[in-house]
Order: sequence, then structure tokens, then C-alpha cells
Amino acid sequence: MWKQLYQDENARVGVMSLSHGEVETPVFMPVGTQATVKGMSPDNLKQIGFQIILANTYHLNLRPGMEIIGESGGLHSFMNWDRNILTDSGGFQVFSLAALRKISEDGVSFRSHIDGSLHMLTPENVIDKQKIMGVDIAMTLDECPPYPSSKSYIQKSMDLTIRWAKKSRQYHPVGSDGPKLFGIVQGGMFHDLRQECANKMIPLDFDGYAFGGLSVGEEKNKMYDIMSAVHEVLPTNKPRYIMGIGTPEDLLEAIDCGVDMFDCVLPSRNARNGTLYTWDGKISIKNRKWQLFQDPIDTKCPCYACQNFSAAYLHHLFKAQEILSLQLNTYHNLCFFYELIQAAKKEIYAKNFKTFKSSLLKKWNK
Amino acid sequence: MWKQLYQDENARVGVMSLSHGEVETPVFMPVGTQATVKGMSPDNLKQIGFQIILANTYHLNLRPGMEIIGESGGLHSFMNWDRNILTDSGGFQVFSLAALRKISEDGVSFRSHIDGSLHMLTPENVIDKQKIMGVDIAMTLDECPPYPSSKSYIQKSMDLTIRWAKKSRQYHPVGSDGPKLFGIVQGGMFHDLRQECANKMIPLDFDGYAFGGLSVGEEKNKMYDIMSAVHEVLPTNKPRYIMGIGTPEDLLEAIDCGVDMFDCVLPSRNARNGTLYTWDGKISIKNRKWQLFQDPIDTKCPCYACQNFSAAYLHHLFKAQEILSLQLNTYHNLCFFYELIQAAKKEIYAKNFKTFKSSLLKKWNK
Repeated sequence: MWKQLYQDENARVGVMSLSHGEVETPVFMPVGTQATVKGMSPDNLKQIGFQIILANTYHLNLRPGMEIIGESGGLHSFMNWDRNILTDSGGFQVFSLAALRKISEDGVSFRSHIDGSLHMLTPENVIDKQKIMGVDIAMTLDECPPYPSSKSYIQKSMDLTIRWAKKSRQYHPVGSDGPKLFGIVQGGMFHDLRQECANKMIPLDFDGYAFGGLSVGEEKNKMYDIMSAVHEVLPTNKPRYIMGIGTPEDLLEAIDCGVDMFDCVLPSRNARNGTLYTWDGKISIKNRKWQLFQDPIDTKCPCYACQNFSAAYLHHLFKAQEILSLQLNTYHNLCFFYELIQAAKKEIYAKNFKTFKSSLLKKWNK
Repeated sequence: MWKQLYQDENARVGVMSLSHGEVETPVFMPVGTQATVKGMSPDNLKQIGFQIILANTYHLNLRPGMEIIGESGGLHSFMNWDRNILTDSGGFQVFSLAALRKISEDGVSFRSHIDGSLHMLTPENVIDKQKIMGVDIAMTLDECPPYPSSKSYIQKSMDLTIRWAKKSRQYHPVGSDGPKLFGIVQGGMFHDLRQECANKMIPLDFDGYAFGGLSVGEEKNKMYDIMSAVHEVLPTNKPRYIMGIGTPEDLLEAIDCGVDMFDCVLPSRNARNGTLYTWDGKISIKNRKWQLFQDPIDTKCPCYACQNFSAAYLHHLFKAQEILSLQLNTYHNLCFFYELIQAAKKEIYAKNFKTFKSSLLKKWNK
């Protein structure tokens, strides 16, 4: 379902063929946790150019629940998004949000962070849920150990994740109708465990492979160190996905390591806090220096915010706590992430990716 | 600047010629207090069809301030709205929001509700401010007495408003460059005072006349009683505006009384609280009955929300407290108000307005 189009050292351009159209990689997927990317209409996302978004099984399972999404004809129809959707399995949220969780061989039981109701996720039922939602890419259930954890705990947790991955593949074998299924490689900050986990999952022939358990509080250099293992430990002929990253810097580093897919709440969450991304680095729109600034924050940016409004107006909207501030800031940041990836693809084709990356990192870290 | 096109008893269709294009009346003006209609982009407002919006001098004077709006080339340019803008004079907000206000012959001084800073509005400087903003219709400064007030206080206050109106007209005479200037008729719930106030203002030859001091807590029948004076006391050859109303019922009653212009935060504020308007009456989108409702809330509504999303999805967005809930609900309610006025115009042309009004009121009051 993924085909490489071009390569520049480990960085690569490819294309995924999915039920709701083709998706070029590298790709950044905006996060639509509750069946909406906060502050964006589906039309806005299409105007930017996104071909795939992410939604969260954990959240949607609790609210509105699978019955309502199923009755609505699936998630695409429910949220009126006719392009691709990837859903996580809920594993990460169970381990970061839910209360009273209890892990067993069969899965993980927990109490809802919304109303305390009791739920259980299993390797099998998370596939059922993602099938009910009718998503294009489903993720397997994994355990996400906290950072830091001892190597022995990471090993034990990883072994469970591998057993769950096997159950998942048995339940949704290669060639099944419905979503493509991605496996999640765990192993913490340990190269040997990542390698071992990947080795045991590759025979399961998932449609793509993710690294889970990164960007969980570790130092950047540790994360980059583990990312650097991607090219070595994951198959070259399948899409590779690092879950939950990241900053523009992280995306560039990851692409350089041969990663194809990313998702992160960062651009949208930062937008709501007034932090905006530009080709010259981050800015804070609440800063008084923008009060009388008549140009858009980025004159070259094609987004609706920059094409129509001055930085002075964005500053005013933020100070006045207006809804349009959330909308325009989110629009801009998501567009920046989209454009960054578009530029990266161009540089890969030009065999110039490393130079491109270094010059941006140098500018941003000034 | 206003021309009548058609009349059905007191109800009338007309057209105002303003600097940023023609505006058909009756017209409902969405409220963009802080230089944005909450949750709507300028494009959204245009998609619905609005030709004029309202903004608040009081709020914009405090934040971002006239210097910034002036430096930005005026309010149209600042908020990227190239159709018409009417601004109130700030009088109403001074009397409802500001602290420590002190009325004198010259104007009213007060402290900002945002930061406590000291300000003064005068009949002359509110015109200056509205000229700096470059609006199409400016309102004169008036005193808005609280409801209820004694007849003697209303009389005294009205006399001041009349003296301020004279100063305003002297300061911005008939034919001046810049905004059209509307006078505000006060007089509380007293027909004779409304008549007296109008009689004293008509010689000032304002471009239009408003009734202020309605919808300030009085019973509906009192408001409708005063509204019924509009046709008798205000000139027939100029636009008539009732400030700060109202519900769909209020708009129909007002049109029936010969009123041409309205503004109100109701449709947008109610949208944010989950109250949506339909041709069958108000609904609460938070009600569980919408949880599995697969149709839009109004299948005939042309708005972006109804054309693209089910009531079930709107219900979910509201429960999940998503930003898109505010956006879609606002879009729908403003579109409903727009469509209601469009329908009213059609019925006036059909000489059928009273029947149209009665049948809707009967349905809504069931």
C-alpha cells in the first residue's frame, strides 16, 4: 500500500494508496481527537491540502461512543471528512489519561476520565472499534510504559505489546477487508529492545510500522537517538510512523532518519496559546511588538490568516480572547506544518535534504 | 441614502446606498463587538449574504484603541471586511458596562471595564472615533437610562440626549464627508416622550433614526407598544433602526411596525449556548434526542452546518465542548436570521406579511 518514489540518503518520498485517496509521504497528520481538528472545518483542512487526519479511538469510544459513530455510517460520514483517517488504538491515552487501569494478558481495563465508567480495550476489540469507525489505517493495541522505566519493565511491557500485536494480526489477517493495520514497535530508549521488538513484528507483515513511546518526556537527544534506529530496524518497503511528534525540528530530524508519518497536537495547541510558526522560527502573537504590525505574520504563507489579516489584527484577536483567534492561529500553524513537509519533499527530490534541514535548524536555533 | 422599494401596510422593503455597497432593508446586522463576529470569518459572513455588520465603539476604543485601528487604515481594513459597518456610539455600553461613570453636559466620563483606565465620550469625539474607524453609519452619543426609571428622569435624560444630538449634527453637518449619521430617539416606555424626542430630532435631518433604550429588561408587550410608535413618530423617508433587538418574534413584530434595521447578539450568543433557531422554533442541541439524529437540524437550511453535518454531530461537538461547535452553531443561527429577513421581504412584496408573521408566531408559540 506504500510505494517509494524517491530517496535522498535515508529521507524518502513515497505514496500510500488508501481507501479515501492517495497520501504522499512524508506526511503530517493533524489531530482530530474528538472527530474534529480543534478550530478547523473539514473544508479548512482541505483548503490547506491535508489528505489524512488522525482521530483518537480512546476519546471517541467514550464520547460519542461506537454506537453513534456506527449509526452515523462511520467516522468519515459523522464528521463529513471524505479523505483518509488514521486512528490510534487508544493504548497511549489509557496509559496517560485513564484512571484505575489494570493490565492483563487479555487487554487493559480502566475508568473513563470523563465519567468514571468502566471500559476495557483488547487487541481484538480495538480493531472492531476502528472497523466500526471505518477508518483507513488502524493501529494495534500497545502498552505505553511511562518514562523513565527500568529496562526490565520495558522488556516485560514490550513482550506483552508483541503478544497483543500477534493477536491483532490473527484477528485482522493480511488482506482483510477494512482498515490497513499498523504495528507499534516499543522498546523505550533501548536500541536492542527496539530491534528485538521490530524483529518479532516484521513477520506479522503489518501494512506499516510505528515507533510508539517517544516524545513522552525524554530528552531530545534520546528521542533523536532512538529515531535514528528507524531506518535500520524497520522495513524499507513499508511506511514508518513516529507517533506523537513533533516540533518542526523533530519532523526534519525524523524525515532525515527515514520516517514517513507524524502526528502531533503541537501546532494546534500552540496556536491556541498564541505561539505561531514561521520560516524564521516561532513567534508569540501576544507580544506587544505585533500591535501595530501591518503585514501578515508571514508574507509568503498561503494560509487564510496570512492572506487576509495583519499581525496587528491577530494580536488584537488574541488579546480580546476571540474565537476567530483560535481559528486563524490554528489555520496558520497547520498550514505551516503542511508547507514544511511540502518543502521537505521538494528538497528530497533535489537530493538536498540534509542541507535544507541544517539551514533551517541553524536559523531556528539562533 | 434610503429608498423605499415596496410597502405592505407599515412593513416596507427599501435599499440603503452606502460607501461599501447597497444594503436591502429590512436588515439584520450581526454584532462584531471586538472587530469580529464571534466564531465567524469575514468569508463566512459573506457566504451567508450579510451586507452590513455592527461593531462597538466602546469596546474598540478601549481595545485595540483608535490609534491601532487608524494606523491599520480603518476598521474595514483591520478586520478585512469590505462591506458596510455600522458602529454604535458607545453610549449603551458606558451605561451598562463601565464603572464610575459621570454624566455632564459635555459627555460622559467612565472607567474601562477592562483595566480601570479613565475615558470620556462626548458627542463630538464619538464622531471622531467613528470617522477614524471609517465606518459607513455612525450613531450619535445618547444617554441610556436604566429600566425602570421615573418619567421625570427619562425626560431629563432625553433632553440631554437631544442636546447631544444637536451638538453631533453641528459637528458632522448634513452632507459631510465620512459616515452617514443616525440620531437616537429616547423616551423610555412613554409614547409622548418618544414623540417629543422625535419631533426635536427630525429638524436635525439625520440620515436615519433609531429607537434606543428598548430590550433593556422591560416586558415584551411594553417593548412592542413602543415599537408601534415607530411608524407614527419617525420619518417615512428614512431608515428606522431599533437597537439591540431581538428574537425572531421581535424582528417580525418590528418589521410589522415599519422598522428597517436591527442588531442583536442573540443569535450568536445563543449559538454558543447550544440554542439553535429553526423554522419550527428553537431547539437545544444539547438535548439527548439529537444524539442519533442523522439529518441536519434543518434540512432546508442553506448554511454550511446544515449542508454538511447531522444534528448528531452538532450534538457531539457541543457535548465535547469543541470550537467547531461554536463555529457551526453560530453559522446556522446567523443564517437563520438572514433567511428569516429574506423571507419577510418576499412576503412584503406579496402583500402577505401579516399572515406570514401570524403563522410563524403561532407555530413558535405552541
